[in-house]
Amino acid sequence: MELTTNEKLTVESEKDLIALCKELSQKFATRAAEYDRKATWPVKDYEDIKSAGLLGIMIPKDKGGMGASFLTYTKVQEQLSQGGASTGLTFNMHNITAGILAESKTEGIGGTRGKAMNDFRNWAFSEIIDGRKMFASANSEPGIGAHFSALKTTYQKVDGGFIINGYKLFVSMIGYADYYVVAARREQPSGDLPEISFFIVELDNPGVEIEEIWDTMGMRATVSNNMKIKDCFVPDNRLFLGTEGLGIFKLTREPHWVIGGYIGTYLGLCQATFDYMVGHLQKKKIPGSDQSVITRDWVQHDVGKLSCELAATRALVYRAAAMVDEDRGSPQTNAAIHQSKYMVSEFAPKLASHAIRLCGGSGIAKSLPLERYYRDARCGGLMPATSDECLLYAGKSALGFDLTKIEETYW
Amino acid sequence: MELTTNEKLTVESEKDLIALCKELSQKFATRAAEYDRKATWPVKDYEDIKSAGLLGIMIPKDKGGMGASFLTYTKVQEQLSQGGASTGLTFNMHNITAGILAESKTEGIGGTRGKAMNDFRNWAFSEIIDGRKMFASANSEPGIGAHFSALKTTYQKVDGGFIINGYKLFVSMIGYADYYVVAARREQPSGDLPEISFFIVELDNPGVEIEEIWDTMGMRATVSNNMKIKDCFVPDNRLFLGTEGLGIFKLTREPHWVIGGYIGTYLGLCQATFDYMVGHLQKKKIPGSDQSVITRDWVQHDVGKLSCELAATRALVYRAAAMVDEDRGSPQTNAAIHQSKYMVSEFAPKLASHAIRLCGGSGIAKSLPLERYYRDARCGGLMPATSDECLLYAGKSALGFDLTKIEETYW
Amino acid sequence: MELTTNEKLTVESEKDLIALCKELSQKFATRAAEYDRKATWPVKDYEDIKSAGLLGIMIPKDKGGMGASFLTYTKVQEQLSQGGASTGLTFNMHNITAGILAESKTEGIGGTRGKAMNDFRNWAFSEIIDGRKMFASANSEPGIGAHFSALKTTYQKVDGGFIINGYKLFVSMIGYADYYVVAARREQPSGDLPEISFFIVELDNPGVEIEEIWDTMGMRATVSNNMKIKDCFVPDNRLFLGTEGLGIFKLTREPHWVIGGYIGTYLGLCQATFDYMVGHLQKKKIPGSDQSVITRDWVQHDVGKLSCELAATRALVYRAAAMVDEDRGSPQTNAAIHQSKYMVSEFAPKLASHAIRLCGGSGIAKSLPLERYYRDARCGGLMPATSDECLLYAGKSALGFDLTKIEETYW
Amino acid sequence: MELTTNEKLTVESEKDLIALCKELSQKFATRAAEYDRKATWPVKDYEDIKSAGLLGIMIPKDKGGMGASFLTYTKVQEQLSQGGASTGLTFNMHNITAGILAESKTEGIGGTRGKAMNDFRNWAFSEIIDGRKMFASANSEPGIGAHFSALKTTYQKVDGGFIINGYKLFVSMIGYADYYVVAARREQPSGDLPEISFFIVELDNPGVEIEEIWDTMGMRATVSNNMKIKDCFVPDNRLFLGTEGLGIFKLTREPHWVIGGYIGTYLGLCQATFDYMVGHLQKKKIPGSDQSVITRDWVQHDVGKLSCELAATRALVYRAAAMVDEDRGSPQTNAAIHQSKYMVSEFAPKLASHAIRLCGGSGIAKSLPLERYYRDARCGGLMPATSDECLLYAGKSALGFDLTKIEETYW
Repeated sequence: MELTTNEKLTVESEKDLIALCKELSQKFATRAAEYDRKATWPVKDYEDIKSAGLLGIMIPKDKGGMGASFLTYTKVQEQLSQGGASTGLTFNMHNITAGILAESKTEGIGGTRGKAMNDFRNWAFSEIIDGRKMFASANSEPGIGAHFSALKTTYQKVDGGFIINGYKLFVSMIGYADYYVVAARREQPSGDLPEISFFIVELDNPGVEIEEIWDTMGMRATVSNNMKIKDCFVPDNRLFLGTEGLGIFKLTREPHWVIGGYIGTYLGLCQATFDYMVGHLQKKKIPGSDQSVITRDWVQHDVGKLSCELAATRALVYRAAAMVDEDRGSPQTNAAIHQSKYMVSEFAPKLASHAIRLCGGSGIAKSLPLERYYRDARCGGLMPATSDECLLYAGKSALGFDLTKIEETYW
Repeated sequence: MELTTNEKLTVESEKDLIALCKELSQKFATRAAEYDRKATWPVKDYEDIKSAGLLGIMIPKDKGGMGASFLTYTKVQEQLSQGGASTGLTFNMHNITAGILAESKTEGIGGTRGKAMNDFRNWAFSEIIDGRKMFASANSEPGIGAHFSALKTTYQKVDGGFIINGYKLFVSMIGYADYYVVAARREQPSGDLPEISFFIVELDNPGVEIEEIWDTMGMRATVSNNMKIKDCFVPDNRLFLGTEGLGIFKLTREPHWVIGGYIGTYLGLCQATFDYMVGHLQKKKIPGSDQSVITRDWVQHDVGKLSCELAATRALVYRAAAMVDEDRGSPQTNAAIHQSKYMVSEFAPKLASHAIRLCGGSGIAKSLPLERYYRDARCGGLMPATSDECLLYAGKSALGFDLTKIEETYW
Repeated sequence: MELTTNEKLTVESEKDLIALCKELSQKFATRAAEYDRKATWPVKDYEDIKSAGLLGIMIPKDKGGMGASFLTYTKVQEQLSQGGASTGLTFNMHNITAGILAESKTEGIGGTRGKAMNDFRNWAFSEIIDGRKMFASANSEPGIGAHFSALKTTYQKVDGGFIINGYKLFVSMIGYADYYVVAARREQPSGDLPEISFFIVELDNPGVEIEEIWDTMGMRATVSNNMKIKDCFVPDNRLFLGTEGLGIFKLTREPHWVIGGYIGTYLGLCQATFDYMVGHLQKKKIPGSDQSVITRDWVQHDVGKLSCELAATRALVYRAAAMVDEDRGSPQTNAAIHQSKYMVSEFAPKLASHAIRLCGGSGIAKSLPLERYYRDARCGGLMPATSDECLLYAGKSALGFDLTKIEETYW
Repeated sequence: MELTTNEKLTVESEKDLIALCKELSQKFATRAAEYDRKATWPVKDYEDIKSAGLLGIMIPKDKGGMGASFLTYTKVQEQLSQGGASTGLTFNMHNITAGILAESKTEGIGGTRGKAMNDFRNWAFSEIIDGRKMFASANSEPGIGAHFSALKTTYQKVDGGFIINGYKLFVSMIGYADYYVVAARREQPSGDLPEISFFIVELDNPGVEIEEIWDTMGMRATVSNNMKIKDCFVPDNRLFLGTEGLGIFKLTREPHWVIGGYIGTYLGLCQATFDYMVGHLQKKKIPGSDQSVITRDWVQHDVGKLSCELAATRALVYRAAAMVDEDRGSPQTNAAIHQSKYMVSEFAPKLASHAIRLCGGSGIAKSLPLERYYRDARCGGLMPATSDECLLYAGKSALGFDLTKIEETYW
């Protein structure tokens, strides 16, 4: 099954889309062990994604994309990530850019700025739809993580463009992606807050160098190496949305992309773990007997508890995603995004740990996927906002703090 | 605000209904401490419920009720139970009867049986709507709990009716309710399974006696005393739905009422606990200072975690309730009902325990509601299906057992 | 069995002592429900304690006491509190005073101060041993809890004594105890820190009034009412240890009494809960059958987990208590005391909650002790140092903070 | 520092021994990453162990060993495993054999059997002490795990020895160890229970073949490949303890070696994880600032909680080990062994998961040890008795089952 990118995403076609993603995911699953072992980009998975027209999933229909809702997107990620968690995670990086652009309303903004915004959007959409190009992001920095208000990478305005200098960590897909959205702060900020802007950088830029240090326990196929940026010139038309200073405001008001983009991926990882566990237990015998272990009631009890937690996690993730569609950027929605990010990120390693315990010795064999799920699962809580940042955010929200104030958040 | 019972429950009026229930709940809250201390029926709460026309919430609109969906009902219970958990719990007992009757489709059943069913439904609906009568249930028995397949209370057919003998425990609202639905098994069953039927018993029946032993830690205002039934004659037209042997099948196929009816109540209790905790912490100072404890980040962190778990619990409860409306009796729906029953029942005492810990010494004072929440909260997991029965059910469901087979369930 | 107070506490006699306390505890158990319901002092339990010579358990042998170690004391409390948690808790208040006095070495302190200290100790020991008098404590204050550095109760030196003014909360045993150790701060402190001193106040002092407000969920028989202190004169020889300003220093350096005194009590409560649960389950049948529920492996699994946690809690409590004997006041010992206080205080309500869940509906009946354990169990974490203060202390300790600095602690 | 093997292990020398092991462990730590990556035997670690005379740690002093107690042994393992968990785990395999032999009292057993036992012990002790030989074990089998009562590997008596046939999994150290203790059952058992005996097999035996399949997530340097045994002749004097049929009885009565041998290793892994976490946090700054993250109170709170659980785990592990020395094989001791095995095995992965969460992104980097701890930590609960078998055992023990009956255990 292949979707053309112009169909309307009715409930019917959301089902088709999910079914398509499930098919792709089953292919990803056959490749995941090797990509994990070698820590290389899941190139064949990306090719499948491109062939299926999924690069434009978030792009508005009138721009040639699928115009998916955030809930649909979350379900798509859930499917794709069951087979390839690193694939889903990096595909999300692409969609953070596409999604933010899709949500940026440019109507009614006239003049030069309006034109610059429109030109940028159209260029980006065209590159994605027609050029099958993928976008990555370069935000994290040493000692800062993804806390934008403390960014050390700087830019200055020069004739015809900007000069960027800095050092970025954890740039997922680096080496494979076509464009890199680089966050930087103005060298001489005009107001109180650092003026964060974003720029599109390409790898053939002489000011850009990949530092290959990626060697991690989990999510290995994201290949998140470092990027060194030295006197890197970027022309005016590669300023993100044609506008300086959009950064912090957007992130504090509408954090669903940079934070909530992950929730589908880790939900998918949870589901893959749970399904593997159930299948394994169904085949496992009570030692020294022909009776299935699933007839033991303590096994049913334990699996039951995990199923309850998975169901609650999914309900929360879907609810949070639906709230993005219904009431984007509201305090309730933002709290829900942080809550769901925390819950799914911490349930994933807990579930994987318990699944190995239930499956027994073979659960740690590299010939089976469970040990990879265990390694991948621990990564979610480290991605921004980290699990503990999410808790602090959720707690402040419940306690009545005003989280539109940047000093109350973790940015 | 008062609702007439004939308005259509559009999204707009669901909001009105919830708002009404919130108002009522605030009244309930002012009375709850006294009802708890005295362990008496929350009579004034019941009067408010009657005045608001809520007795007919589940009754079809063409029969004069509100025809609420299960999701709306769950939200109503959530509201009512915030102020009066025992009130909500007993009101649920009434709605179990009303709800099961409402769902019983009698169209197309002709003949004597169809007439008997219709007559019974119409009588019950009329008693509720016009007579403002409340229904209670008498299921549990010593050594059996609510495991219907092992019921010891028996009935035998006699001229013009039935003779019932037995002993029932935990009959909530006993002494206040107007009608009691009593489960009994045929003395000479015809098939393999005990033939469970239900009968409407009234307290002025000379064969019925209340045994007053109710003295518990929590949910005290449910006044769930015992019922002794000796040679109790019930006329033919008080056989539930005019039909013998409906019991087990209905309960295993569509357990949402007897199990899922509680989820709104305990969700409301969780919300009341959380809200009280937040309000208390907002006023509490760091000992020996004027600074609020909510400025301490470990407090935010802990409250944040509880808020995440509450949000996940609510999302699951709402999802399960919506599934009842969408796909009643399906394996997925039944599993969701059991999962949500487990999650909300066990989160309630965990939350209350943590809330007291955070609020400090005054958290155990009887002048404040928190200690009552703690006591009430522990009761949910004991009601059928118990927390552990829910886990076994959920586990079997996930592991592929066929739960339509009675031997795989806990009945 | 009755111990004379002069025997040497060899390993053999520790066993005898524990056996004696077990006997007493079984008597306490028969009275606990009534004391709980009425919220009155467990007077008969106190009489048993006095008759057994236990008032002097901590007093040195050469002063007529038993000279028990802190580990032995903890085990004694564990026994006594199984039958009467409120009894153990208030008996601990007495021993806080006796224990601190016993540990106060006065040898080598000459002059007036040395004499005053010795006189005070001898007076107190004689009152306890010969007079069978009990000591209580009055520390907590509104908005402060037991944070001594912020005490509002003051004292000033006058001719022949001191004048105290203040307001104390949670004075356990008030009305029954003979002497009350009242913490107060000097009105004009001489240094940076408030100079906290302690005084012995009696109830027939015209400046002292009991405010009867005690009405709580748990530990009801501690009868911890408030004490109003107005222009209360205390003679010089009732200054604690004859010395001003001992307070904060002692508490930060050697917090085992005011914090660690509780650990035996709550361990006993845990054991009582566990034992009740096991006995209940051994008798409980699978609903509708004659088979014991303990044959179900999920029950074994759950009980096994609770037994592991109880065993770990006990091992930690005993280890912490032994460290007090081996290395009193060391950073390691103080950390262990806080760790054990946290663990046992939070395990108690968790265990009680789970025990009710496993025991089922009768677990909330007031005719059985389990519901009382549940209510009592939630109180431990609220007593100083609260569970969260313990965690912060333990965390700082692990992270290398210097907890002899008062600003790093919670005092 | 090097210990001669003949010194008496007084309290003083236990300290020396622990200090020595700490030194060795620091060396192991520098090699662990490479052994893990390559999944090769930690040969240099073994050489250090041999040079320090530790091979004979469990062998009685009169046989040239150290005669360590089980508690001392557990502390030694705790130290060694902090630097090299796989090293500790395989060294434990050696000591299971040495320890069981050391505990086998042969005095008073006369005749041929007594002589055979003595000869075997002396041979094994001499090989270890004088020959620096290491013993491994081959117990687990496909579909059976280490459940001895269902063993499929068989032996039959032939002239001058025995012929063994079977297939063993998870033979740690295979290829490096000198001798392999192989469990097998008599082909024609004489009584009801299978007659399990143990034999010493060497790798140069033509009937033995190593199947190299070891590729796991954790404990990689244990190199636990499979062993194929075909028509393998073992002479009479390589029958373990010169006696057939010792197996099941010994294991059910005194399971501390095969189960409790692991507890020191996993406690060490916990300690290494905790220490790494603390050191990492002490250096970590709040993002974008120069302030240490350990000044945030939520970090103290979380670390405090983990420190409490670690302290409780250690207290339980030490207590269980001490009970082996005090009361070997008693029901209480066996329960404590199972409880401690469960607690330490499940705390290890929980702690490692939380430590990574607190340490942040670098926690998953292979250049740091934390991710290895996370992978290794998940293995403990899979080793016999598995975490869930331990729970069932502990539960049955608490509920009053007689665990000397083989049908009540998991063997």
